Amino acid sequence: MGSKRPARREFLKSGAALAGGFALGGAAPAIGQTPSSPPMLKGDKDLIAYGERSRFVTSVRIAHGGRPSPDGFGLVFHVASPLQDSVGVITPSSLHFVGTTRGSYIPEIDPQEHRLMIHGMVDRPLTFTMEDLKRLPSVTRLHFIECAGNRTSPKAKTVQETHGMTSCAEWTGVPLSLLLKECGLKGSASWFVAEGSEEVKGASSIPIGKGMDDCLVAYGMNGEALRPQQGFPLRLMVPGFEGIFHTKYLRRIKVTDRYYMNYNDYGHLDRESDEAALGFQIGPKSVITFPSGGQQLPGRGFYEIRGLAWSGGGAVRKVEVSTDGGKRWNDAEIKGTAQRMAHARFTYQWNWDGNETELLSRCTDELGSVQPSRAQVAKFFNKPLDESFSVPGLDNTIQPWRIASDGSVRNGNA
Amino acid sequence: MGSKRPARREFLKSGAALAGGFALGGAAPAIGQTPSSPPMLKGDKDLIAYGERSRFVTSVRIAHGGRPSPDGFGLVFHVASPLQDSVGVITPSSLHFVGTTRGSYIPEIDPQEHRLMIHGMVDRPLTFTMEDLKRLPSVTRLHFIECAGNRTSPKAKTVQETHGMTSCAEWTGVPLSLLLKECGLKGSASWFVAEGSEEVKGASSIPIGKGMDDCLVAYGMNGEALRPQQGFPLRLMVPGFEGIFHTKYLRRIKVTDRYYMNYNDYGHLDRESDEAALGFQIGPKSVITFPSGGQQLPGRGFYEIRGLAWSGGGAVRKVEVSTDGGKRWNDAEIKGTAQRMAHARFTYQWNWDGNETELLSRCTDELGSVQPSRAQVAKFFNKPLDESFSVPGLDNTIQPWRIASDGSVRNGNA
Repeated sequence: MGSKRPARREFLKSGAALAGGFALGGAAPAIGQTPSSPPMLKGDKDLIAYGERSRFVTSVRIAHGGRPSPDGFGLVFHVASPLQDSVGVITPSSLHFVGTTRGSYIPEIDPQEHRLMIHGMVDRPLTFTMEDLKRLPSVTRLHFIECAGNRTSPKAKTVQETHGMTSCAEWTGVPLSLLLKECGLKGSASWFVAEGSEEVKGASSIPIGKGMDDCLVAYGMNGEALRPQQGFPLRLMVPGFEGIFHTKYLRRIKVTDRYYMNYNDYGHLDRESDEAALGFQIGPKSVITFPSGGQQLPGRGFYEIRGLAWSGGGAVRKVEVSTDGGKRWNDAEIKGTAQRMAHARFTYQWNWDGNETELLSRCTDELGSVQPSRAQVAKFFNKPLDESFSVPGLDNTIQPWRIASDGSVRNGNA
Repeated sequence: MGSKRPARREFLKSGAALAGGFALGGAAPAIGQTPSSPPMLKGDKDLIAYGERSRFVTSVRIAHGGRPSPDGFGLVFHVASPLQDSVGVITPSSLHFVGTTRGSYIPEIDPQEHRLMIHGMVDRPLTFTMEDLKRLPSVTRLHFIECAGNRTSPKAKTVQETHGMTSCAEWTGVPLSLLLKECGLKGSASWFVAEGSEEVKGASSIPIGKGMDDCLVAYGMNGEALRPQQGFPLRLMVPGFEGIFHTKYLRRIKVTDRYYMNYNDYGHLDRESDEAALGFQIGPKSVITFPSGGQQLPGRGFYEIRGLAWSGGGAVRKVEVSTDGGKRWNDAEIKGTAQRMAHARFTYQWNWDGNETELLSRCTDELGSVQPSRAQVAKFFNKPLDESFSVPGLDNTIQPWRIASDGSVRNGNA
């Protein structure tokens, strides 16, 4: 981890380095005495059946960055996850980001009535009930989903606003390859169109190679059924691809020999060709979640810098952190084993000297692809780098957080 | 996986093998037509902030197996997780089992007011606020917790009743070793007593070696704050030890040079010495969650047998499944990489011929310890094996599920 990393024993050596310092535990009551007992709440039947969080925990998703959908069908609705409060790798299902074209409306689907039909260029079209699908061989994998609209806008103040449209969960379902094999692909099959039970269908064209590789027809999420906002009862997982491909309320897969234009293509084809070509797979990306915009460091001293890294190209291989605006880069620690197309949690131990500085993180994935800076992307597209520069396609540029000498943190892109 | 495993392509070859068979997807509407649109629910502010599950998903925890606490303080309350509906490895926090001596009462703790004191045989007693703890270097690990009362009673009908007092979550917190080092252990320190904010304290004596090895002072669970029923705001994780050691509402750690008798010892010392000696670490264990007691197979044909395996001795190395009452054992597939002291999900592909049989699973952990049968344990303790035989200590014996020719499943120990 290099010489920049403070030794383990230094955290508490001077208590004053931490906010207020640790109190010496002087007059300890004997074990058996009760200093004070907290109030007790009686759990009712509902709490026994299905627990809830503490009323003192108030971390919530926020609606952010929505805009009218291009066809006037509704609102492109963004509900962002509170990454500033995230711990570990899993996003709780209740806090998983939501992207939808239907405002806050959620299809209410009875799983008994739900069907998945696979047809088109196959030898044998098949229709599956939920019970059919659950009876088949299953896989469980950790995967992120990220909305293409997850971008580090100069106007965004917090990491929830800059990066809250990504989340990571443990998904369980049937490999799509198994279903496609059973239907029998015709030789000319080269694409498939996945369609969900929404007015706008949520349809997307996806290469058949991706479908045979690692797509998942998922009915489970974080150990229970999918949540309605995440596509209950069935969602297509397209690991590493933009969120819009992860078709919610999946009801139909049509195998084709060509790309079909669909409602969802507004995001890819409604713009310049440069940007349209950048669809599908998400590049290597990372963001520091603590300290991040809007937070306040109580003073100089030790901090554990924490963040998330991910890539559509596979597993995160390396995360580097700079605490001096990019002059020097230091290897961060990746917690546990980074999974393919999943968030990885990274940390870096930092002693802040109280001076103004800028914190950055940079992800390298298993393909060796490295997360770029905004300056690199602007140069690549031969555009001037100013605050109005919008990264074409999904923005995976490095997020700078500026630390002021008073400990306040703000968006370095602003 | 051996010759017993059906080839991948066989699942659907004869549609009749699955319940009702798959329907041929004949008259498919063109992409762009809508067969039927589901009703839409408008999400209110609460749903945007923190999502909920579908009203069609009704899997719940149940109170099961409670009894009056030995000192009359209250009820030893068991709330069991619905393992029969579990998918993957993570237990959703809302469905994580609960064991408590306070009935359904839950301490309601303001985290701003909460403190952790470490004192006793240390050079420098310290008191930590939640903010102090969150600022320190963190770790994130997947760990199961299992209540010692999680036993395969002949009276239990479902896997929720036989095994629902185990769960697995992603825990985030500070290594206890870091805190103990900062306090400075005196040379004679050999045990510590962990105490929570409950009338009965939830206190347990734990070897200091375990504390320095892998204990965790956890504030995070499945990506958010601990839940109140799981010890909010702070819980001691003692990986692989019986659940009672994982002190909820952790407020004090006293370092000592001897074992302290505490309320929690009723489970260990109130019985025969054989049983008392079996406390602490949980042995290798597994259970088939599908098909399991009370479920109904719709007919002969293909099934994916699914289950969970875990061990207090480390990672699960192997799981074997028998579909003929123990005559032959076949290697099951372990999903992903089994983590240390965590649930592992296993599956085994099975073609049921429609005859009566018994399904068993057997776990081997990284130490090479093998999950025993009830007969082996009875023989070891030189006791007669009948329905009244109660396995001393934590029962990690093999769970048999009997499949009747009508497809009904019942507890093979009954």
